[in-house]
Amino acid sequence: MSNHHQNAVVLFSGGLDSTTCLYWAKSQFAHITAISFRYGQRHSSELIAAEKISKILGIAHHIIDIDIAKLGGSALTDPNLSVPDYDQSVIYDDSQRVAPITYVPARNTIFLSYALAVAEVSKASAIVIGVSSVDYSGYPDCRPDYIAAFEQLANLATVAGRQGHRLSIIAPLQHLSKAQTLKLGLSLGVDYAQTVSCYQADGDGRACGVCDSCHLRKQGFADAGIIDPTHYQHAPKSQ
Amino acid sequence: MSNHHQNAVVLFSGGLDSTTCLYWAKSQFAHITAISFRYGQRHSSELIAAEKISKILGIAHHIIDIDIAKLGGSALTDPNLSVPDYDQSVIYDDSQRVAPITYVPARNTIFLSYALAVAEVSKASAIVIGVSSVDYSGYPDCRPDYIAAFEQLANLATVAGRQGHRLSIIAPLQHLSKAQTLKLGLSLGVDYAQTVSCYQADGDGRACGVCDSCHLRKQGFADAGIIDPTHYQHAPKSQ
Repeated sequence: MSNHHQNAVVLFSGGLDSTTCLYWAKSQFAHITAISFRYGQRHSSELIAAEKISKILGIAHHIIDIDIAKLGGSALTDPNLSVPDYDQSVIYDDSQRVAPITYVPARNTIFLSYALAVAEVSKASAIVIGVSSVDYSGYPDCRPDYIAAFEQLANLATVAGRQGHRLSIIAPLQHLSKAQTLKLGLSLGVDYAQTVSCYQADGDGRACGVCDSCHLRKQGFADAGIIDPTHYQHAPKSQ
Repeated sequence: MSNHHQNAVVLFSGGLDSTTCLYWAKSQFAHITAISFRYGQRHSSELIAAEKISKILGIAHHIIDIDIAKLGGSALTDPNLSVPDYDQSVIYDDSQRVAPITYVPARNTIFLSYALAVAEVSKASAIVIGVSSVDYSGYPDCRPDYIAAFEQLANLATVAGRQGHRLSIIAPLQHLSKAQTLKLGLSLGVDYAQTVSCYQADGDGRACGVCDSCHLRKQGFADAGIIDPTHYQHAPKSQ
């Protein structure tokens, strides 16, 4: 039974946030299973980054294929929609109640459900997810009340949970800004040049420099006063 | 906004319970989207049944491929485990706290997560699922507290939910025995000869007659005093 406290499952995309989470989890748990998803996203370079980083850390890594792209409704997976530059994005706030066009329906719920299955099979006591309500307040499934609701669900969904083996959903970045996340990651030894955050990175993992995700990432390095090691496709339009 | 009350998503396997739910949903909602999953289950005959029944009812039907089989841990998807006959099954109860070997890790959570994505895209106000805590008390993710927890999660997970468009998770069979489910279905016009419940049905959809699922189904017809129209592979061992 005690081995329930040694294992964690990490949702790991190969991006800045989830790589920070992976390093954090490695500092906290004896055994880690990292899982990534292939869901019709335009850039497979983030999956290549995820494999490379898992190998560096000596962590088991699984890629799960999911059918989310069929569902449509997001510029990240729908070839008929274009990924907006940052200044054209619609940002959700409490007055407007609109999500960014890059929002994928139920994505984190589907990701966490698969993580729950892996957690049950691997007898993990935690699932680690890299959501932040500071930078991504536009996504309803990145908020603390959502994470708490999934944790409650998870403990009712499984035999282990019903037996009293608590599963925790841990979001170490929940209240961190991008700059704070970067500082945490650097203290844990993350090499951010290996990570890919861009919504439309090229085949070599080089970032566009202009999408929402690139904008937040750049701003994080600037705010933290750290030199940005990201590989860009070309000189950014503006800084 | 009002069209949120017209649409429902039904989790539909082509079996006895979910077919009853589909007919029930058709009596309650103007538009139905039925979804099935191909997850490495041994019998694709239930998916064939699901397509046939959807066509009869004129309902949109989608099959979603999921990677659950890789996760292992269930006789339903793991080729190294055999499906037990009813009398060999381990039945979960509150004293033993053991789930049947046919339990698939996090299955209903994964199914409901995809249904949530479809519900969001189709602006549905309900997801209908055919769980029962009478016949399937062995499965933690068939119980009322689990369903309530998923409903709470769903309304925090989506933009629509955050905007106050409530999504309900409806389990019309939750408190019905198999016999009561059959009576409900017959009152709604279900032809149970079309449905496939068996865990190891053959290519023509004929049931083995001896697995856990066949046992419950047979018993339901017997208890309801209804002639069993199921197509069996051979005469049942015992009645």
